[in-house]
Amino acid sequence: MNDQDHMAKEFSDLKNVFYPETVAVIGASTTLGKWGQMIFSNIVAGGFKGKVFPVNPRGKKMYGLKVFRSVKDIPESVDLAFITTPAETVPGLLEELGENGAKGAVIITSGFSETGPSGKKQEKIIADVARKNRIWIIGPNTMGIICPHAGLFATGAHPRPRKGSVAFISQSGNLGTQLIHWAEQQGVGISLFVGSGNEAMLTCPDYLEYLKNDPYTRFIVLYMENVGDGIRFLETVSRINRVKPVILLKGGSTRAGKKAAASHTGAMSGNDAIFKGACRQAGILNVNVPSDLLNLSAGFSSLPLPMGNRVGIVTVGGGWGVVTADECAKRGLVIPEIPNRIVSCIGKYLPEFWSKGNPVDLVGSRDLEAPLVAVEELMKWDGIDAVICLGIVGRNEIMKQILKSTRRADRKTSSEIPGHEEQMGQEFEERFIAQIAGFMETYQKPVVGVSMAGTGKGVVRPVPESRYSGVMYQTPETAVNVLAGMVSYSRFLSKNSGH
Amino acid sequence: MNDQDHMAKEFSDLKNVFYPETVAVIGASTTLGKWGQMIFSNIVAGGFKGKVFPVNPRGKKMYGLKVFRSVKDIPESVDLAFITTPAETVPGLLEELGENGAKGAVIITSGFSETGPSGKKQEKIIADVARKNRIWIIGPNTMGIICPHAGLFATGAHPRPRKGSVAFISQSGNLGTQLIHWAEQQGVGISLFVGSGNEAMLTCPDYLEYLKNDPYTRFIVLYMENVGDGIRFLETVSRINRVKPVILLKGGSTRAGKKAAASHTGAMSGNDAIFKGACRQAGILNVNVPSDLLNLSAGFSSLPLPMGNRVGIVTVGGGWGVVTADECAKRGLVIPEIPNRIVSCIGKYLPEFWSKGNPVDLVGSRDLEAPLVAVEELMKWDGIDAVICLGIVGRNEIMKQILKSTRRADRKTSSEIPGHEEQMGQEFEERFIAQIAGFMETYQKPVVGVSMAGTGKGVVRPVPESRYSGVMYQTPETAVNVLAGMVSYSRFLSKNSGH
Repeated sequence: MNDQDHMAKEFSDLKNVFYPETVAVIGASTTLGKWGQMIFSNIVAGGFKGKVFPVNPRGKKMYGLKVFRSVKDIPESVDLAFITTPAETVPGLLEELGENGAKGAVIITSGFSETGPSGKKQEKIIADVARKNRIWIIGPNTMGIICPHAGLFATGAHPRPRKGSVAFISQSGNLGTQLIHWAEQQGVGISLFVGSGNEAMLTCPDYLEYLKNDPYTRFIVLYMENVGDGIRFLETVSRINRVKPVILLKGGSTRAGKKAAASHTGAMSGNDAIFKGACRQAGILNVNVPSDLLNLSAGFSSLPLPMGNRVGIVTVGGGWGVVTADECAKRGLVIPEIPNRIVSCIGKYLPEFWSKGNPVDLVGSRDLEAPLVAVEELMKWDGIDAVICLGIVGRNEIMKQILKSTRRADRKTSSEIPGHEEQMGQEFEERFIAQIAGFMETYQKPVVGVSMAGTGKGVVRPVPESRYSGVMYQTPETAVNVLAGMVSYSRFLSKNSGH
Repeated sequence: MNDQDHMAKEFSDLKNVFYPETVAVIGASTTLGKWGQMIFSNIVAGGFKGKVFPVNPRGKKMYGLKVFRSVKDIPESVDLAFITTPAETVPGLLEELGENGAKGAVIITSGFSETGPSGKKQEKIIADVARKNRIWIIGPNTMGIICPHAGLFATGAHPRPRKGSVAFISQSGNLGTQLIHWAEQQGVGISLFVGSGNEAMLTCPDYLEYLKNDPYTRFIVLYMENVGDGIRFLETVSRINRVKPVILLKGGSTRAGKKAAASHTGAMSGNDAIFKGACRQAGILNVNVPSDLLNLSAGFSSLPLPMGNRVGIVTVGGGWGVVTADECAKRGLVIPEIPNRIVSCIGKYLPEFWSKGNPVDLVGSRDLEAPLVAVEELMKWDGIDAVICLGIVGRNEIMKQILKSTRRADRKTSSEIPGHEEQMGQEFEERFIAQIAGFMETYQKPVVGVSMAGTGKGVVRPVPESRYSGVMYQTPETAVNVLAGMVSYSRFLSKNSGH
């Protein structure tokens, strides 16, 4: 068995921790604002299907569950324990968990290396105790974990993202849970969230090793301030990025940010230029801001990869086509001329004075077939690798506003506006999204949508029975940014497919 | 009287058009989907206080108003007419409007220069007829105008932005009305919106001349694809940018975008690099994407201008502070160290292990005084020109989710969660925003907020009796981008204050 196989085997044990059947919450509480309350109530309210053992010296019942006075009283061994009690209690608890046969511990407790040298020493001690007792440690100083496929929601905040294929490891708990909150709002499906905290034992490369074989994870997102062993990190991430795309936000890439990072997690970040270069060579998508992480997650987890950089644009209005073409050009995406055959095919559905080219400007046409024909004709053609589709999903919001306003104008007279107009618009949108998902299946090219109007339905619009989802960003620049990222990863893969 | 005075006088007449007391809608209709319906119902439903004269040969009544069979039948002269009937009717209508004494006409009708040489000829004819009849023409091929201070909403779509100080001139109607839709959702106050369409008579520089003296307008936004007379445009915009900031998005700045623009408005855009250089010299903010226009509008119209580039950051979580510091550094904003005096002053409200520097990381503290003290101490200090404030407004959304979820966990037992927690959180946010507005008044420095969570309350949060508003962007990169734009404009002003 070589080193890599050995490691893969070792970290595959983490599945017991991330798909637990029994969990304990040490320091469980019902007092609002306490970590023992936030984690415990989240697990209960989130509907975890396994057994939950709250631990608190006061005993009795909490949220309908029997409370154990001590870890020693728990009648069976637990897969995963959450520790929320003060730092000085942690070593003793890990010994008790060792006797219990526990497999892992999420240490929420803070007051370790982030507080200075003495905390750092304490952190080393708990890692040693855990190793001796064969317990995986997540944290300390973490905001928790979320394992949607196991029905386990165990962070301080209570977002409930849907089940999905995006794994997210974050060294900042606050930033991490906010991103998961966005993921929930935007419909991005999550396979795992880990706030890795101070990483006393498990580090980012370890989580990557585990995720490589996690059956639900297809896409990996990292927020890091401290890379730690840079060589191991780059070796691991390069290897795993060839199997599952990895996208990275490195906090503290400027001097100002580095200073902030040092006081935040005690992290000392390395030479950014060298690091960035190494990432680029390894095909890692290295982004600048947290919202990029979310937007790329939505695209990568919902769309087929484009095989090249040639983009067709379909737009309800000319100005948006212009702005999108400009953004594409700036990001290295090409807007090819389309053949006459396609022009005349699409032209059948449009007024005489339409743009007759790419971008396809639907010039406000209300023909419901026109956008579908335009998108499919572009996808069929082998001169196009991806389509950006502007304002078709979303225009119902504008329409709803017009109808609502018109009814107000109409108050004095008999209403001439049928009540089902909005409903029809909504149904058209759903059908359009389903058809787009079908086209993506057939032609294996991504269609990136831009809604412009806030539809209140999120970025990712799943389609029943389809492996692809509709993706509707609010702005064209977001769509172009995501498509550029996907093109870049796709190129990396094809360049390296010979290896 | 010099040329500039003459022009200012000439264009000041446009106030009759943009603050009309009587309007006519030619081609008024109640048939959904027709322009004559969309414009007419919008004016009626929008609550225009002046007189409205619908014109349609069929007569009778529409939306409770008497319909006139012809312009000739209108019993008094109109300030502004909207024309929605086919292109060939326009010259005759303009003659009739001339006899009526009409002052202006918004020509919604399309089918002019955007369709080719023959349309271009027609467009020249209507401009000549209008000039002869001393009628200002807006358009043709426009989506309409909005004058919130006159209660006049007259676009095809029906957004109702609040009254405010941002004037917006757009050569793309579709892009323009979408931006106004966003402005409405985000609470950005508008003084005027004009879809300038094909600009047969009135062009962007003309609107700028008018806006210079418009009492409500303090900030001007332009979307252009066709600059036309580049020298006149640059001369005008440079002059007016010294009085009121002008922000510009030039569509068609790449070859791909130019091609798209040519087929859209028939515009031929000039040499982009030269144009950009000229704008930079004139201190014009030249942005890349429509959402920048909206975000900068929110900041410029709600906050005092920063006098320099030194930023204090107050954050509820360390990771966000790191990311924001990185973004500031990339955009030329400086994060200075803060003196011990301020560190100990803020420290009284925070746990011992807080960051003790800038960014001020509130380390999740729930002390309600802490963020206010931190923000005010930073603003008081003359080493800071602006404050970015992350996650304080917005965290109530996270709290609401926790409380809702905890009540679910609590179902089986007696509820221990008081019902007014969310209410208190909401009240704290409102009070916080009001206090920030007070600080801005006192210290004349901007505070840019980042909510992260979608609060559903928009970016701009007006404060009664205050000339400044709370501004809460969803992401730190947006806040930094806006602040960098404001710093750049402020520098331009101070450099040119000697002239």
